Amino acid sequence: MIATHRKRRPTDFAKKKATSQSVDKSSCPFCPGNERKTPPAVLVYLMGKDGSIVKKKDTNELRHKNWLIRCIPNLYPAFSPPEMKENFESGRAVGHHEVLIESPDHNEHPAVARLSHLTHVINAYVDRLKTLSSKPYVRYVSIFRNHGSEAGASLSHAHSQIITTPTIPIILSNELKASKECYEANGTCVFCDILEKEKKGTRFIWENESFVVFAPWAAVHPFEFWILPKTHKTTLLDLQPKTVKDLARALNVCLGGLNSLLNDPPYNYGFHIAPNNGKVDEFYHWHLEVYPKLTIWAGFEKSTGIYINVVPPEDSAKSLKQTIQRHHA
Amino acid sequence: MIATHRKRRPTDFAKKKATSQSVDKSSCPFCPGNERKTPPAVLVYLMGKDGSIVKKKDTNELRHKNWLIRCIPNLYPAFSPPEMKENFESGRAVGHHEVLIESPDHNEHPAVARLSHLTHVINAYVDRLKTLSSKPYVRYVSIFRNHGSEAGASLSHAHSQIITTPTIPIILSNELKASKECYEANGTCVFCDILEKEKKGTRFIWENESFVVFAPWAAVHPFEFWILPKTHKTTLLDLQPKTVKDLARALNVCLGGLNSLLNDPPYNYGFHIAPNNGKVDEFYHWHLEVYPKLTIWAGFEKSTGIYINVVPPEDSAKSLKQTIQRHHA
Repeated sequence: MIATHRKRRPTDFAKKKATSQSVDKSSCPFCPGNERKTPPAVLVYLMGKDGSIVKKKDTNELRHKNWLIRCIPNLYPAFSPPEMKENFESGRAVGHHEVLIESPDHNEHPAVARLSHLTHVINAYVDRLKTLSSKPYVRYVSIFRNHGSEAGASLSHAHSQIITTPTIPIILSNELKASKECYEANGTCVFCDILEKEKKGTRFIWENESFVVFAPWAAVHPFEFWILPKTHKTTLLDLQPKTVKDLARALNVCLGGLNSLLNDPPYNYGFHIAPNNGKVDEFYHWHLEVYPKLTIWAGFEKSTGIYINVVPPEDSAKSLKQTIQRHHA
Repeated sequence: MIATHRKRRPTDFAKKKATSQSVDKSSCPFCPGNERKTPPAVLVYLMGKDGSIVKKKDTNELRHKNWLIRCIPNLYPAFSPPEMKENFESGRAVGHHEVLIESPDHNEHPAVARLSHLTHVINAYVDRLKTLSSKPYVRYVSIFRNHGSEAGASLSHAHSQIITTPTIPIILSNELKASKECYEANGTCVFCDILEKEKKGTRFIWENESFVVFAPWAAVHPFEFWILPKTHKTTLLDLQPKTVKDLARALNVCLGGLNSLLNDPPYNYGFHIAPNNGKVDEFYHWHLEVYPKLTIWAGFEKSTGIYINVVPPEDSAKSLKQTIQRHHA
């Protein structure tokens, strides 16, 4: 529900003060030197002598130093791997919950990261997706990022999270069902259709060779935007290096624009991908959804499922587009 | 998803400091003396000379004084009434958005209110429901309360809100569909069945002659509880005075228990009622759901629709039950 009666300017949402507080890096478990405060990493990216990326695992005895990226099991996992000889009861929260530490630099952020480093982050997402999606008890792999304490980030060191679920999440199953119905009715991918329409419309924000960024028609959040690949692919598994580079640039530019416009607001982003490594649902089209956290879902939203968005997506798109053109082009 | 791996004690959620700050009542638009700062009330409860309730409306010229309850149009409405001769386009947010000021006392709260006053609040809900549900463009009336800024209450003066929608909200239509299916399969009301089961179980919290209070089996929020009437009724419209009194007591006791246990936490509550004045969906059973706001929905929840509850409902119920027995029996 778009509440134009409540129309507001972007400055109404801008954070009043910068969130970058001085951080005691000796106490941050994700900062270099504190590797022992975390479980052994399931994946470490190190810089090889020839400048290429070397991929390792930690052991119980060894935590690698001089890393670029570390992916570790979450110490407080929402989902846990099955134990030996376990009886898989319906509904048990079997799975993995990992933290992907994006950089040794505590204050790293896609908006300021070097593009080369951002491509490593994306490649690490894909590496973990490959490994986790091959497990028999994994039906879906959710890759997401929380930024800012108001958006649920309990640690401020730059990180993403990966959770695998033993069922297909309802938002995905709804999207799969709807995109299948569209495909059967029209013979086209609904996301490809949306992309063609939004490229030319009032909700367009930015594009490069591989991606279109736009505010969705029924945006739930003020300043919500989606990053949609121009090439129809069901999942992230076989991204070309050029596509990875272009996604890094899209994240850098668009999250940079969001930061400039609203002064480093809290946000969440989440990948939407087809389950089963994309082999079944050929009509699906992976994408990334970015939700700035600027309002609070309260009694009305929680008891009806209707979400009131106080900024029309056309206004969100216009502000973001202008900010990007001025400061991030 | 109940994350027992992340099990926590109630004290982990208790607010660290009391939220009751000194309020400048001269600036609160809901406090007595400031009636001119709000639109004219659509409903005012005044005390009559014989102690009975007199119901009035404000006019543009007159704002009643010495009121007990005022219900006013929201100055920033999410939904607006249709204008004269308007063309009802599909999807326009036609409706009403009202604020029900529960008391002249800024710090009033169901947990501390006198029961006689709480019955007036409930009666005022029902009065507005009657009036609003009779309008041809109203399909549903959502009655809810936000408490605490973290739960979306932008003003701290005790108030509820009422929003009417031109469609049946998805949460309600899902509940209507499911309860209809259960009725057709079993010949019984699924809520009546739940009530019988929860009355005796590990999620039971409290009951009186008219209501059972329990933590639901698949609670989405830590310390979530539902207040379910023992008599099968589809909506609030024809509550008996005894039922109103017992609901007032249930709110008083259970929100009192929540406050004692978690030190006045933010929360939302919302009524779930059948649309169409309950005349169509006889299998539905109205109830009130209370959601303490203790955690943040982040990237995982928002991109999957799976909600991680870190406190099993059995533990929530046990803590609430014990606190109520000790302090509110």
